[in-house]
Amino acid sequence: MALRARALYDFNSENPGEISVKENEIVTLQCEQDIDGWLEGANSRGERGLFPASYVEILKNDSVSSNNNSASGDGFQTSSYSNVPSGGYDAPYTTQDNVTKAPNVTSNFTTFPVTAQQQLSYQTSQGSDDDWDDDWDDSSTVADEPGVVGGSYRDYDGNGPSGYRVSTSMPRGGGSQQAKSSATVSRNLNRFSTFVKSGGEAFVLGEASGFVKDGDKICVVMGQYGPEWQENPYPFSCYIDDPTKQTKFKGMKSYMSYKLTPSHTQSQVNRRYKHFDWLYARLVEKFPVISVPRLPEKQATGRFEEDFISKRRKGLIWWMNHMTSHPVLARCDVFQHFLTCCSTDEKAWKQGKRKAEKDDMVGANFFLTISTPAAPLDLQDVESKIDAFKAFTKRMDDSVLQVNATVNEFARKQITGFKKEYQKVGQSFRVLSQAFELDQQAYSAGLNHAIAYTGEAYDAIGDYFAEQPRQDLDPIMDLLALYQGHLGNYPDIIHVQKGALTKVKESQKHVEEGKMDGPQAEGINERCNIISFATLAEIQHFHQIRVRDFKAQMQHYLLEQIGFFQKITAKLEEALQKYDNA
Amino acid sequence: MALRARALYDFNSENPGEISVKENEIVTLQCEQDIDGWLEGANSRGERGLFPASYVEILKNDSVSSNNNSASGDGFQTSSYSNVPSGGYDAPYTTQDNVTKAPNVTSNFTTFPVTAQQQLSYQTSQGSDDDWDDDWDDSSTVADEPGVVGGSYRDYDGNGPSGYRVSTSMPRGGGSQQAKSSATVSRNLNRFSTFVKSGGEAFVLGEASGFVKDGDKICVVMGQYGPEWQENPYPFSCYIDDPTKQTKFKGMKSYMSYKLTPSHTQSQVNRRYKHFDWLYARLVEKFPVISVPRLPEKQATGRFEEDFISKRRKGLIWWMNHMTSHPVLARCDVFQHFLTCCSTDEKAWKQGKRKAEKDDMVGANFFLTISTPAAPLDLQDVESKIDAFKAFTKRMDDSVLQVNATVNEFARKQITGFKKEYQKVGQSFRVLSQAFELDQQAYSAGLNHAIAYTGEAYDAIGDYFAEQPRQDLDPIMDLLALYQGHLGNYPDIIHVQKGALTKVKESQKHVEEGKMDGPQAEGINERCNIISFATLAEIQHFHQIRVRDFKAQMQHYLLEQIGFFQKITAKLEEALQKYDNA
Repeated sequence: MALRARALYDFNSENPGEISVKENEIVTLQCEQDIDGWLEGANSRGERGLFPASYVEILKNDSVSSNNNSASGDGFQTSSYSNVPSGGYDAPYTTQDNVTKAPNVTSNFTTFPVTAQQQLSYQTSQGSDDDWDDDWDDSSTVADEPGVVGGSYRDYDGNGPSGYRVSTSMPRGGGSQQAKSSATVSRNLNRFSTFVKSGGEAFVLGEASGFVKDGDKICVVMGQYGPEWQENPYPFSCYIDDPTKQTKFKGMKSYMSYKLTPSHTQSQVNRRYKHFDWLYARLVEKFPVISVPRLPEKQATGRFEEDFISKRRKGLIWWMNHMTSHPVLARCDVFQHFLTCCSTDEKAWKQGKRKAEKDDMVGANFFLTISTPAAPLDLQDVESKIDAFKAFTKRMDDSVLQVNATVNEFARKQITGFKKEYQKVGQSFRVLSQAFELDQQAYSAGLNHAIAYTGEAYDAIGDYFAEQPRQDLDPIMDLLALYQGHLGNYPDIIHVQKGALTKVKESQKHVEEGKMDGPQAEGINERCNIISFATLAEIQHFHQIRVRDFKAQMQHYLLEQIGFFQKITAKLEEALQKYDNA
Repeated sequence: MALRARALYDFNSENPGEISVKENEIVTLQCEQDIDGWLEGANSRGERGLFPASYVEILKNDSVSSNNNSASGDGFQTSSYSNVPSGGYDAPYTTQDNVTKAPNVTSNFTTFPVTAQQQLSYQTSQGSDDDWDDDWDDSSTVADEPGVVGGSYRDYDGNGPSGYRVSTSMPRGGGSQQAKSSATVSRNLNRFSTFVKSGGEAFVLGEASGFVKDGDKICVVMGQYGPEWQENPYPFSCYIDDPTKQTKFKGMKSYMSYKLTPSHTQSQVNRRYKHFDWLYARLVEKFPVISVPRLPEKQATGRFEEDFISKRRKGLIWWMNHMTSHPVLARCDVFQHFLTCCSTDEKAWKQGKRKAEKDDMVGANFFLTISTPAAPLDLQDVESKIDAFKAFTKRMDDSVLQVNATVNEFARKQITGFKKEYQKVGQSFRVLSQAFELDQQAYSAGLNHAIAYTGEAYDAIGDYFAEQPRQDLDPIMDLLALYQGHLGNYPDIIHVQKGALTKVKESQKHVEEGKMDGPQAEGINERCNIISFATLAEIQHFHQIRVRDFKAQMQHYLLEQIGFFQKITAKLEEALQKYDNA
């Protein structure tokens, strides 16, 4: 019997050698073993070629088996959140067609997109100073541009899930151009590589080494709720001004420049989006178990349009807020260089840039900089906390997805349907008053005027409905987009920790089998302990900012809604008064 | 070539001998001449039988001719508001499919339904005391029942004009049973007959005679705005209590009984709907140029359901209000008998009933009871006022139609769409709070609770939206239904006056031609003057109650809307407070 697999999501081939598959399509496989995350097989139309292993599940004896990635066998393949009980929170979505139909598009919890996207940023942002002034940012071509972030209900076409985009990272297309020239993309389809690439493996095995300066030391302390990053003793914030349009090459090229004013220097610097992008790449490279907030994404068309500029600025404000709120990220050298280096001192900038790119304390070496409390963590306890967090992020990702879809649709309804309904009422009142005006008698005039005014009031209320989402729903969507980014980061972070834990278990087994000596295993255990402290500290930080952010945003939303309904009430009261003299 | 006709509307056969036709279906006719308003022919499925003449247009030489009813031709058939310029106010409705597609269903300005309905009530309500206790009211069969009045958005099926019914009189059903046994139906299709039947012609020609008692005298006086009915020196109102269900024949039959308490007697009487119906028939018969408010119509199914009972009671309250507000109707004997005769004194009731049915001062003789100011009206001036009013009623009818359709749809949207949208938002907030509850940390609990509460608040707001139309839009629809009834009465009233005017013009011509002597023409002129005074007084009264009613209703609507949005605001403020401790 031929080996078969069922497609979990749509996959559209974009390169020679790939074949397209549709969700639920049955494909026959050449071999169960994936090669760098790709499987070879034939689709139902008889086309032969490659497709991502993570997009299908292998069918064994006509029953649904676990994900085929498990074929590459290691301690990590049971992850992908498959061990989270699915009954409880999947059920609510079965009635939500547009949510469930495109999990690969909208969820960050599919393997491929997240890792590839992250990795691609890293790949493409490497480079010499020569390309620093190139327009790979604001003048880049359409093909380079990933999807639009956040609420795009204005473009909603009413034709299902493709109409809105709630993910901060599109599953592909975000880097299809680069993918062709990058050998790392397909390797990243393998989850295990996260542990290897992040340096987690090298560190746990004791292969990381480097000189840690005092200034590089990062402390994890025991707080009220468990391990946490030591607070930043010099907290600061950073204000981002309205961006201005700059031109060069005699106006041939143009780009947006953002004015940043950090509170601890009070000295303004100008940065372009590509500078943010470069910084982001450095941070992702440097911190294997810290969730670096994702940048608001690029947009190909209408880049200088007011809407987009305002949207990206808001995205960057959120991003900056998360950066300065993070005890580790806020203090790191490359971020400080970005915030404080004088925009016009090109030499100083390049110096700092080179230094950051040559930073030794990245990846595996980052763990060398961490100092932890003396008492080691209980491995069992860590594992259960990590599992709980995994379940939490899965559940939060699902609900964020639902809130985003709902809010997006709610905004669209207010802008279109609600507005229309209220204005139709307004229009019918105006028509009535016009009919009444045919009666020229004096006692009729006041009423006619009042009804006409009521019509106008309903017109205005229709406009209020259309304008309101920008004030209250858009900010919610901005917040959700940011958190979708974080939620997309956590699978990798969790896998680094899980990888370390697996190494510990392996080493214990090896000791029992006499293949490893005690001190060596102890070293692995200690280094895993450091990774666990860091991971738990990061999780703690996530929960704290999550509670802070969602509280603030819900309050803002409700305040806006209250103001909105009060505005409507005031308008109606105005209309009512017109009848006093009627 | 066979005589053919095209169906203008759907007609569903309900009785043996009838055949169903679909809108636009071509039927072949046995004969062009209708019999009592019915044509005989075959539909496209080959079925032979009867269908209403007014539902089809006869096709002559394959071109669309005028309605076949015009075959009975006389001086008045060009009326039907066809001389009102159509460009101005027809244009806005061409985009309103559901308004324009069924003019006969929704507009009172088609000839047949209005006149037939009015006439049928009159016909069927004649009769001996024997049928007084029969259940031709609340226990009548489906075939006897006319359509539902007012807003029926709950039944809206989204399939076009049949979904909602804004007219107080359906084109059929109201009298299809009776139509076959009534020779007056088809005669009433002829507009001129209104003048004849109302007694207008007889009176103008001096053929009316009778003894007018002092108590029967009805005065038209010159008021600030022109002729008006002399005010009722003893104004009163009448309270209608919640109806109670009564049974008879050992519970085999049941009916609703309404408790009426007139303010001038403070003595409660019980009346059934059929008593209202009988009264209505008396009033229509008696007053040729007074718009007797139409009764809320019967309903075949669910007659005792709360919704319908409440709806009919509200309709009867409106009706009663218009009755007691009218200086002439409020004071007339039959109405006073209805309001004051003790419910249990069957003898007194039957006496009053017989007296009313034998009333001499009906139709032509009614005009004998009118006394007018000494100075006669200027004929030219009267004609232009009547024309202006005709234009006004046409325009008002159109706009009432539009308001009704809009308000109906607005109510439906609030009950379905708006509710759904707000509750979807509520649901997504609850899902988010449930996800957040997976994080068991203490600092998270307050937020989780607050978000859950916000979800509930949005659920409640959804319910508010669904409940609100009953408070504010339903009363508007009730008002519009009442006014649609009045607007449906005016074509006949106007035609009585126009008929009189035509007689005057004819008589002047006859005098010029020597066919009539001066004094005879003068008599016609004087009697026409009385009709004009009465008509203008009635128009004046209409405008005054219109301004009063619409002002009150718009104020009520706005007050309700304000209260509604304040309720929402209060709910949101409650939700916001939950975050204070979060």
